[in-house]
Amino acid sequence: MRIETYCFVMADSGWPGCAKSLKGVILDMCGVLYDSGEGDGVAIPGSIEAVKKLKASDLLLRFCTNETQATRETFVAKLQRLGFDISVSEVFSPAPAAVAVLKERGLRPHLLVYDGLIPEFDSVNKANPNCVVIGDAAEKFSYQNLNEAFRVLIGLEKPVLFSLGQGRYYKETDGLKLDVGVYMKALEYACDLKAEVIGKPSPTFFQSVLNDMGLQPHEALMIGDDLVNDVGGAQHCGMKGVQVRTGKYRPCDERHPTVTADGTVDNLAQAVDMILNQRH
Amino acid sequence: MRIETYCFVMADSGWPGCAKSLKGVILDMCGVLYDSGEGDGVAIPGSIEAVKKLKASDLLLRFCTNETQATRETFVAKLQRLGFDISVSEVFSPAPAAVAVLKERGLRPHLLVYDGLIPEFDSVNKANPNCVVIGDAAEKFSYQNLNEAFRVLIGLEKPVLFSLGQGRYYKETDGLKLDVGVYMKALEYACDLKAEVIGKPSPTFFQSVLNDMGLQPHEALMIGDDLVNDVGGAQHCGMKGVQVRTGKYRPCDERHPTVTADGTVDNLAQAVDMILNQRH
Repeated sequence: MRIETYCFVMADSGWPGCAKSLKGVILDMCGVLYDSGEGDGVAIPGSIEAVKKLKASDLLLRFCTNETQATRETFVAKLQRLGFDISVSEVFSPAPAAVAVLKERGLRPHLLVYDGLIPEFDSVNKANPNCVVIGDAAEKFSYQNLNEAFRVLIGLEKPVLFSLGQGRYYKETDGLKLDVGVYMKALEYACDLKAEVIGKPSPTFFQSVLNDMGLQPHEALMIGDDLVNDVGGAQHCGMKGVQVRTGKYRPCDERHPTVTADGTVDNLAQAVDMILNQRH
Repeated sequence: MRIETYCFVMADSGWPGCAKSLKGVILDMCGVLYDSGEGDGVAIPGSIEAVKKLKASDLLLRFCTNETQATRETFVAKLQRLGFDISVSEVFSPAPAAVAVLKERGLRPHLLVYDGLIPEFDSVNKANPNCVVIGDAAEKFSYQNLNEAFRVLIGLEKPVLFSLGQGRYYKETDGLKLDVGVYMKALEYACDLKAEVIGKPSPTFFQSVLNDMGLQPHEALMIGDDLVNDVGGAQHCGMKGVQVRTGKYRPCDERHPTVTADGTVDNLAQAVDMILNQRH
């Protein structure tokens, strides 16, 4: 029944045509490949095999995550332990993009990020900060740490806040957790400013992945569990966007007022089977 | 020099006329009477005497605070220890107003408030919560507690969030601290909802103070350190609003894009002297 519904949506939105001209797939990670939680988290059933199938196909494959709790190296090592065939060069995440922006604009960040992410900023001058960078700091989003970031911002003549993503929440094995976007909104209100988002759904971020693949937007498909940041963000760049019913997916996503996925599937395994079947 | 500037502003906005027809004054507390901080905080120089002068005048006097870290009883006792002549019945704060709303609408709150405020909600049924109430929880605004409040809201079919005030920040003796409004914005974004604000600048809240005084808005003057919530809120109700240059006041308040105070004075003592001098 779900597949029928999906096929209808696809036909309606021209998916089959898209699938035939498709040259590359971009996968969100948390909520698509695995659910985070204690330890390494758990792989979502069928996802390890689905990645293998994509790699064995003629499609280009990249991973695009707003993960900011660890360096890419640590993060990819975790995925490898879970059984995924992934290498660091295939993964795009906000911290390296932020480092490039900071250096380009000569900005010295006060960091409010998870301890595991700090090494990504080793090469950046952090003395006498003139901007704030926040990531998914989780437990480090204490009242004290948020006050500290606020005081840096409010003390600047032109406060600049970078947010590594703007997600509302994500799902861990023990329940939903607030994501960085919530604290971005908090600091935006406190300081009466607008943050600059680095990561999904920033068009600059998606474009950097497309550039790396050498593809035009219409040749690529994004698969994610976040309707607004994965699906909507990719669509905003001219890509197709498919949502999986895993991770942070909620049934009400399918009647969202502004974002409609080009397809909704039960999980990554189903998405990959449908894409590959349509190409033969 | 400052006084001259002030006189000009007053003349320009018809203040002298207002002062003559004035029948009551409403004072904000934190940042006007005292600066909070370790222990009881410290009285702002001249404020104790200024309250005495107002009480000795023919003007009605009420205190209107968004303080939500303690019950009114505990809070007033602190002010009395600092030397202020204030009684509980003269003080309006958000928690008792919230209790009335909860009972009226049959709502059972999940509380994310400072421990000291919890007794205000003793008479309210809190089992199986169907709404969330947040106050200035300070250190209790941990990642874990905010996740908990978020999960209650996201689990409700029609999530209802009450915020006891919507302040951005306040000043303690050791620096600026984030206020409840910042966390209200965080939860609003996380759950895609609009909070109901109880306390300043809600017109209902100001009106309840005017009702208690038996005055029309044009007969009352609000004095506060918060340009938006004290001054703007009072003006929105038809009162005059004066800002003091103590507490959270910042020079840029005097060129705010949307709110212009009817007068700006160095401190409460100066405001009271000018009001009383003009009445003779």
